[in-house]
Amino acid sequence: MAVEIDAERVLRDLYGLRKIGAFKTGVHRPTLSADDMTTRRWLADELRAIGHEAHIDGIANVIGYSPAPGRKLLAGSHIESQNEAGWLDGALGVIYALEAARVIAATPGDEDVGVDVIAFADEEGHFGSFLGSYSFVGELDEATIDAAADRTRGTPLREALSNAGLGDQKRALIQKDRYVGFLEAHIEQGDRLESKALSIGIVTSIVSISQFKITFEGTQNHAGTTRMAIRRDAGVAAVEFLQKLQDVFARHSGEHTVWTTGRITLEPGAPSIIPGRAEVLFQFRDDNPEKLAELEAVLAEAVQQADQDGPCAAKLETLAKSIPAVMDNSIQSALETAASLHAPNKFIRMPSGAGHDAQIVARHLPAGMMFVPSIGGISHHWTENTSDEDIVLGARVYAQAVAEILLPNK
Amino acid sequence: MAVEIDAERVLRDLYGLRKIGAFKTGVHRPTLSADDMTTRRWLADELRAIGHEAHIDGIANVIGYSPAPGRKLLAGSHIESQNEAGWLDGALGVIYALEAARVIAATPGDEDVGVDVIAFADEEGHFGSFLGSYSFVGELDEATIDAAADRTRGTPLREALSNAGLGDQKRALIQKDRYVGFLEAHIEQGDRLESKALSIGIVTSIVSISQFKITFEGTQNHAGTTRMAIRRDAGVAAVEFLQKLQDVFARHSGEHTVWTTGRITLEPGAPSIIPGRAEVLFQFRDDNPEKLAELEAVLAEAVQQADQDGPCAAKLETLAKSIPAVMDNSIQSALETAASLHAPNKFIRMPSGAGHDAQIVARHLPAGMMFVPSIGGISHHWTENTSDEDIVLGARVYAQAVAEILLPNK
Repeated sequence: MAVEIDAERVLRDLYGLRKIGAFKTGVHRPTLSADDMTTRRWLADELRAIGHEAHIDGIANVIGYSPAPGRKLLAGSHIESQNEAGWLDGALGVIYALEAARVIAATPGDEDVGVDVIAFADEEGHFGSFLGSYSFVGELDEATIDAAADRTRGTPLREALSNAGLGDQKRALIQKDRYVGFLEAHIEQGDRLESKALSIGIVTSIVSISQFKITFEGTQNHAGTTRMAIRRDAGVAAVEFLQKLQDVFARHSGEHTVWTTGRITLEPGAPSIIPGRAEVLFQFRDDNPEKLAELEAVLAEAVQQADQDGPCAAKLETLAKSIPAVMDNSIQSALETAASLHAPNKFIRMPSGAGHDAQIVARHLPAGMMFVPSIGGISHHWTENTSDEDIVLGARVYAQAVAEILLPNK
Repeated sequence: MAVEIDAERVLRDLYGLRKIGAFKTGVHRPTLSADDMTTRRWLADELRAIGHEAHIDGIANVIGYSPAPGRKLLAGSHIESQNEAGWLDGALGVIYALEAARVIAATPGDEDVGVDVIAFADEEGHFGSFLGSYSFVGELDEATIDAAADRTRGTPLREALSNAGLGDQKRALIQKDRYVGFLEAHIEQGDRLESKALSIGIVTSIVSISQFKITFEGTQNHAGTTRMAIRRDAGVAAVEFLQKLQDVFARHSGEHTVWTTGRITLEPGAPSIIPGRAEVLFQFRDDNPEKLAELEAVLAEAVQQADQDGPCAAKLETLAKSIPAVMDNSIQSALETAASLHAPNKFIRMPSGAGHDAQIVARHLPAGMMFVPSIGGISHHWTENTSDEDIVLGARVYAQAVAEILLPNK
């Protein structure tokens, strides 16, 4: 059965959100800002309008519970934005979930099943790391909330919650046996779909991020009087290492591997002083656990080799390491069925290179994700965009997949 | 005629200064600090004790004018230290000058010639760049003094001068026709002398420093979703460039060339963002103008090549460029005569890789410099040191050279 969405309503909702906290062609709606709270209240109202019991909880998650007695799907994404960033990053997945909830609720004969809609708080990390989804799955403690503060403005999270009128609200907790799964849609944030002229990405897994600090210890000295032959320049060591690492990773990388040096710090960082210490922030991502293990081994080997070769000491420190979040097979199948119907030959299975709330929820529920194309692969910038055509096609595939999941035999 | 110094007096003076602002085995005497002013007043008193007319001027230079009517040499160095740094960097050259002035003044029959002793203020750059020597040669304007502030403590220079009781003092100006030249002794700050088991360096020139900023412009993007193939990573471009530059400079460098990357800044410098911009601070030093021109050309060529090769744009900007300060030939000869007498086969002619007040004075007077060994080549650190034996030998050669310059026919 082909599900009918209201394409105009989807675009109207998204363009409506775009006006709240508008910044150039994007939006500026940091977590718990006045504009962010306006969108959360708007969403709760829209959910109430279709008969959901909706509220904003003690961490600012918006949750709308369907009154349906039967199978239920949890659906949504986040609604706040990065600072001065794109209008669809987060909002798209929330509006798709809202539209699917409306469609299911309004379809005669489908009264038994329903879609609970959720807009997680702070996926963009203004105050922490996935605070909303961690809270909802019961993995966020009060001490973390006590310690959190806005990374741009410095406001403590407790104060921001209180200012938003949420200081006394309880935090909602997942009822696992209520759901058959969780579905999140998102812009791709890369150019894989666009470069292949495709419209739908069915996410197979969310890659893990392995984050390292590599330090080189040499000897700080005078840049004018110290002969080249006796220098132990930590900056020179770091550059040589990183150049070699680039080749090593090019050789060992898989199809989806990405690796990035985000920061190089030379100490003391003065023009006339030979750096005595260099610090490198390096990360790689992949969705294949075997590949991840291989890359970690070659990285460790490269650092060890640099340390052995000298003249500077090299040391590897693991800062963070996650395991890839595998998306549920039956939800992937439902997405494929839906995409085959509405976007034949325009979809692909692919990993997500970015992190999403779905990776947190996936620890507790079968979870799935769907991507729509990002024009030019741009994200976290106000020029981020997706064509109206792709937005509407995505909504259609999404709602169809929801129906496939909730009414598999219809 | 062999000049007789008082070796015990030289060591007593230096060890006495070491106690003023003592920090571990070094000293902490930043310009215009209470301890710095104590040493300046002590020096003026010592100069008065041998009949010099001595005072501390409006920029904190200490100057002692010899009463002798005939040929006069200007001699000295600086007396303040870097923060928590060595006891001999600066002080050595001042005490050598003081000792030479005493010896000349006390030698019967030499009453006609004299040594004016100077301790320049702020060679170590707490407030600016060679403020004392620039002031003395008439190249420091009032606006520069108005704008200067302590780079560590933030105190404006005017306030610091006023606190030191120098607010109303005039600044002394060089009387060029008073002097046959300027002589400065200093610790080498490198390991050339030590590595060759030598005791005296006769400085041929003070190298020029060519300082550059090299920028790479790429595209800032998401480190998880942006495929390796389409990245324009400014950090990767900078690393590749610097690795190649290391080879290029190794090929083109002269015997005394040194080159240093002091800082690498990736923007925005976050672990999960592909750097859109990289900035590199790079400098090289040499005393040979032809070599300097060659190195600048190969640097410009390397940047142009990187820019052409892409994918990032590369740009070279010159931040500062000086010309090597050539030391006067007849002063070098006097130093050689003196070294041949007191330290036969233990001296060498060499350029200075570090900057010194002599390079400023050399624009107005024939100038010369002499080095003594630095143990381990260490400087700008409290562990900086020179053996008592080398200190005494240096004082002997220095005083002898002063006599050779002032009394060439004796």
